[in-house]
Amino acid sequence: MLTPTIKPGLEGVVAAETRLSHVDGQVGELIIGGYPLETLAPNVTFEAAVYLLWHDALPDSAALAEFRQALAARRELPPATLALLREAAARKVTAMDALRMAAASLSLNTATTGDPRQDALTAVASFPTIVAAFWRLRQGQEPIAPNPALGHAANYLAMLTGQRPSEAQARGLETYLNTVIDHGLNASTFTARVIISTQSDMISAVVGALGALKGPLHGGAPGPALDMVFEIGQLEQAEAYLRDKLERGERLMGFGHRIYKVRDPRAEVLAAAAEQFYHADGNMALYRLAQGVERAAVRLLAEYKPGRNLQTNVEFYTALLLHGLGLPGELFTPTFAIGRVGGWTAHCFEQQQTGRLIRPAAAYIGERNRRLLN
Amino acid sequence: MLTPTIKPGLEGVVAAETRLSHVDGQVGELIIGGYPLETLAPNVTFEAAVYLLWHDALPDSAALAEFRQALAARRELPPATLALLREAAARKVTAMDALRMAAASLSLNTATTGDPRQDALTAVASFPTIVAAFWRLRQGQEPIAPNPALGHAANYLAMLTGQRPSEAQARGLETYLNTVIDHGLNASTFTARVIISTQSDMISAVVGALGALKGPLHGGAPGPALDMVFEIGQLEQAEAYLRDKLERGERLMGFGHRIYKVRDPRAEVLAAAAEQFYHADGNMALYRLAQGVERAAVRLLAEYKPGRNLQTNVEFYTALLLHGLGLPGELFTPTFAIGRVGGWTAHCFEQQQTGRLIRPAAAYIGERNRRLLN
Repeated sequence: MLTPTIKPGLEGVVAAETRLSHVDGQVGELIIGGYPLETLAPNVTFEAAVYLLWHDALPDSAALAEFRQALAARRELPPATLALLREAAARKVTAMDALRMAAASLSLNTATTGDPRQDALTAVASFPTIVAAFWRLRQGQEPIAPNPALGHAANYLAMLTGQRPSEAQARGLETYLNTVIDHGLNASTFTARVIISTQSDMISAVVGALGALKGPLHGGAPGPALDMVFEIGQLEQAEAYLRDKLERGERLMGFGHRIYKVRDPRAEVLAAAAEQFYHADGNMALYRLAQGVERAAVRLLAEYKPGRNLQTNVEFYTALLLHGLGLPGELFTPTFAIGRVGGWTAHCFEQQQTGRLIRPAAAYIGERNRRLLN
Repeated sequence: MLTPTIKPGLEGVVAAETRLSHVDGQVGELIIGGYPLETLAPNVTFEAAVYLLWHDALPDSAALAEFRQALAARRELPPATLALLREAAARKVTAMDALRMAAASLSLNTATTGDPRQDALTAVASFPTIVAAFWRLRQGQEPIAPNPALGHAANYLAMLTGQRPSEAQARGLETYLNTVIDHGLNASTFTARVIISTQSDMISAVVGALGALKGPLHGGAPGPALDMVFEIGQLEQAEAYLRDKLERGERLMGFGHRIYKVRDPRAEVLAAAAEQFYHADGNMALYRLAQGVERAAVRLLAEYKPGRNLQTNVEFYTALLLHGLGLPGELFTPTFAIGRVGGWTAHCFEQQQTGRLIRPAAAYIGERNRRLLN
């Protein structure tokens, strides 16, 4: 009998064909729905990016208006979901647990019909309402009802803060959400595809994906990257601070990636978005400090870890951008999910078209003939 | 550049090593934790089977008593979970959606601590309470509080019916739960492993697995297998009925399996359990009818589909056994989950020990240089 090779992390195993995104870590390229990331992310609304992934083409203005309207009409949460978020806030569960729990209850939504396209709209539309409502309840504030006149990104910020965001703020968030909307077969996207491959429903797939995104090896921890910038405080302290960390063998958060061996293309796009945004906001000091820390870190990493090619990853500028938008660190991963659910749902549609069940094998290494003693 | 082979269903790809179970479809063998299924399933309690998977050894009597006590102490649901089930029952969502939704809210349980071992106990202990409470609420009845004096299986039946089950009933359910507790890297178990591989938590993994089990390609539909037996009604009608179905090219539910090319060993164990149970219950007519239908179906399938080797699968006797225990068809898959969560949690422990992220690759087949038009 042939013993097949064991692939414990499935590394290098191609589990799906996709038209949704392409990651080339060697040259630092990310394609989203046929567009280079830097072409797409800063220039279209989040609704248009979701439409692109679902339909393999950007919408014309009539289609975009209709799609925006369909999403805006689904932002309200079922009362039972809100009650659950109240309890979650009272118990101080983490924001990711609250989001997963509330998303699982979306089957109570009257708009949730079991039809994959309808349920995908409900999931994408509901995530910002869930996160914003939970966060306000956690601060002892009442949730703010969604405003259907605002776009997806602007409405999320409005539900968090109670204030209508500036154009620059909405654009900054939109660019972030587009940047993280899809990234090949990452663990959460793969989870969604495995679940939907059993012919299960869209809400089940999205809830499973949220569980995977919650893991530190996946959703990451963008908070600490910015904490380091704050601790450094002044650019002239950067080199000494970073050298000290590296001498002690500590990891620099926000640098290095399993796939990218050059600067993560998402870091590039987010840095540009952050610059624009901090500029419009009239507060360039933090941006310049972060940029200086980045340069020093990349230079020192090359010195201390030669050949490793540790470059700025997506977390570094995610933290800078989301912080500038007023988001606390605990909402960084849930906000990542608000973008990525666009990709999860699109991958589910793609998987459904294959009609295949995803079902790998295991190699048994246990005993075979144990006997009961009495 | 080398193009790796695409494995759309990951068929034949070995994604993990396991000591938990081994499926040999050619010879019809299933090993659970080192024991042949037929040795283990009818002879130990469900609590002992879970302990076996978690510890790679059956418990001695002191360890078993402690384990039973730890599970029994975690059966109560958080009030917010019960409120959610009330709403789910009022909205008439399916039992699997209700179970997934309620399981996702177990992070509200004070016993849910983020410690994998504690949370696994909470998940295993809570599933029967969730399913029974939901089902009673759906019938307009109040939930019945768990009884810590009863074992896991007996207590589930007591919470469903309000009556203490007979020894034979409890034993029948126990054998069923042990029989389905684990089955290699099926899609739900694989989902749980992918989620926990990101270092996410046990509740997230189990909730994702429930989403996968819900799919008809996985959790299956044990109901229709029994419906066929009822429609046949009298053994002398079996051949004509089955021939008619086969002539029209219809599928016979309860026969054929992707992996097993001989009689599913689980069918064997469940048939014996059903026989014992129906015998104790003094009602052998249905059992004999089912057995006769099985024989006729296997014979006619060999005639109509020569070479396909379509044998009785686990669904056929699952339906007969669970029906005999008074369970309605809609609870067959949730009851499957009550057994399988033992395997999911054990696989999560095993995956955590590897420390590896499961992250396959995708092949990009889309465009690369689309341009924005304006």
